[in-house]
Formats: sequence, C-alpha cells, structure tokens
Amino acid sequence: MGIEIERKFLVCDASWRTHIKQSQPMAQGYLAASPGTTVRVRVAGAEAFLTLKGPVKELARAEFEYAIPVEEAREMLALFCEGHRLEKVRHEVEVGEHLWEIDEFTGENQGLIVAEVELASADEAFVRPRWLGAEVSGMPRYYNSQLVVRPFACWSEAEQRGEVSCRE
Amino acid sequence: MGIEIERKFLVCDASWRTHIKQSQPMAQGYLAASPGTTVRVRVAGAEAFLTLKGPVKELARAEFEYAIPVEEAREMLALFCEGHRLEKVRHEVEVGEHLWEIDEFTGENQGLIVAEVELASADEAFVRPRWLGAEVSGMPRYYNSQLVVRPFACWSEAEQRGEVSCRE
Repeated sequence: MGIEIERKFLVCDASWRTHIKQSQPMAQGYLAASPGTTVRVRVAGAEAFLTLKGPVKELARAEFEYAIPVEEAREMLALFCEGHRLEKVRHEVEVGEHLWEIDEFTGENQGLIVAEVELASADEAFVRPRWLGAEVSGMPRYYNSQLVVRPFACWSEAEQRGEVSCRE
Repeated sequence: MGIEIERKFLVCDASWRTHIKQSQPMAQGYLAASPGTTVRVRVAGAEAFLTLKGPVKELARAEFEYAIPVEEAREMLALFCEGHRLEKVRHEVEVGEHLWEIDEFTGENQGLIVAEVELASADEAFVRPRWLGAEVSGMPRYYNSQLVVRPFACWSEAEQRGEVSCRE
C-alpha cells in the first residue's frame, strides 16, 4: 500500500503553459465511490491502471494501484462506468524540486483547471509558482470521483469562480 | 474480459464430502457492490485476487480478475471492507466432466452450503450428482456480495430451509 499526500490548487493565470514538460490525455471512470473508498480505472496514453483509494485523512490517502491491459481498461470504462467517466489532459510542470500535475478537464468539466503536487509529508515545504491560485485540498466538489456525478458545467457561477468556502 | 456462466444449487445431503478433491479457506470482501458492478478482494490460500464483475445477464457475467500480492489484499480487507467481509471453505468435487465448487460458509453465514458449477454456455448439459438440491441461480440473497450485508444468520427460517421462491 502506498500513502498519497497531495495538495490541490486552482490556477490564477495561464503562465504555467509555457513551462509544460509533457502532456497526456486521460480517460477515467469510477466503478465505485462508496463512502471513503473509490475504485478507479484510468487510461493514460498507452498505459492503464486500476486504482483503489481509501478515505482522505489529513491530506493523506491509502492507495493501491495495479497496471492492467489498456484494452481491458477500455472495456471496463464502457461496461461499468457509464455516467461515471471523465476526460482530461494532464500537463506536467516542474517548479523547484516538485513536479506539478495540472489537470485541464474537457467535456462537461471544460473550464476547470486544477494543479496538484504530491508531497512526502503533509507539512513539506514547496515553492509556490506565481500561477498558483486558491487551495482546494479536501473540497469534495473538486474530487475527480465527484466531477463525474456533478461536473463543472453544473456548478453555480460562484462555485465556478472558486468563491465558495471550504466549509460548503 | 472473461464471461462467467455459473449455476448455483443448494446441497441436500453431505455425501459430497467423501469426494472432496481439495479444500481451501477463503476470506473475501467487497469494496463496492453498486447496482450491477461488484469489486471483490479475495485471499485464497497463498494467492489473492482483485475481481470486477458486471451485472448478471441470463446466468452470464462479465468478469475481470487480477492477481495481487496477498499482503496487499489483507490490507484492503482490513482498510476498505469492514462490515463487508465473509469467510468460507471452498471444496472442489469432480462430477463427470465438471468441477463443482462447494462453498461452506463460516462465521455469520455458518450453516449455508452452496454448490456452483461453471459452464461454457448457459444451456450446457452436466451430470446432476445425488447430493444436488434446489437451484438458486440468480437469487440475490445467495450472492456472496449480499451475504456480507445480510448473512445467513439473519435469514428467516423459511429462507434458511431454502423454501422461499425465486421471485422474492
């Protein structure tokens, strides 16, 4: 089991685009998002993964991930994830010691861009690039597993502007 | 993807016990049992598997199965499947051309014994051994994913005797 510690932010401008190291389209869906546990299937370029995640506790989350054949992942997305799929392009940007993953969503989540950094511990320091906006770590509506059931297109204008508090 | 075609029966006596080829204890739990899709983790002796199954359609069911490390399966059972676990001993008995799996449940499902045979097609013929009782294929209360939420100990006496119709 791995432990995933991530912090998630909005972006406040597009200056990160000039620093993209690589970009990859991703399609993913959820076979389950019962309280605290998600089962995700993801196709990322020529690879595919089945990923199980536990509940988020203080930014950290138990995670089990297994590589699976891409063809089987596509079958699962079609068979098991209807109405629970999303697509995005993941851009990688290096800032100081850290690799940021900037997810630019498409389809019903078009317009949403979220930047994530993985940390070794919850209090690890990191350089804040100038394009970094408000932190949205732990806000359920930004969970990918929530974006499949309540996409960005359904959010209120205040939510779309990122103005609603963490205590929603 | 595999397609699993199974028929499931009660047993009407214990004569199968003298024909056991091998027996193996199993512990399994469900990370998800949303309508039509189950995600199961199973420890079977020295092996472990993560298995995804689609909805049952005319005895057949889409199935994807991946071998995973036993240690990780045990962690998943503890972390993700609390209240959604069961234990049983699976006995294998050969009858004619077919291998029967006879599941003898323990714990809260003690007293329930179910025999399953996997077929190549829904109408494939098979020898009916004399210990074979009523067919319970497609009856939800006998699904393992249901036995974790409504175990045999909670069934009515009529249900425990297998007397309730398929149209429950």
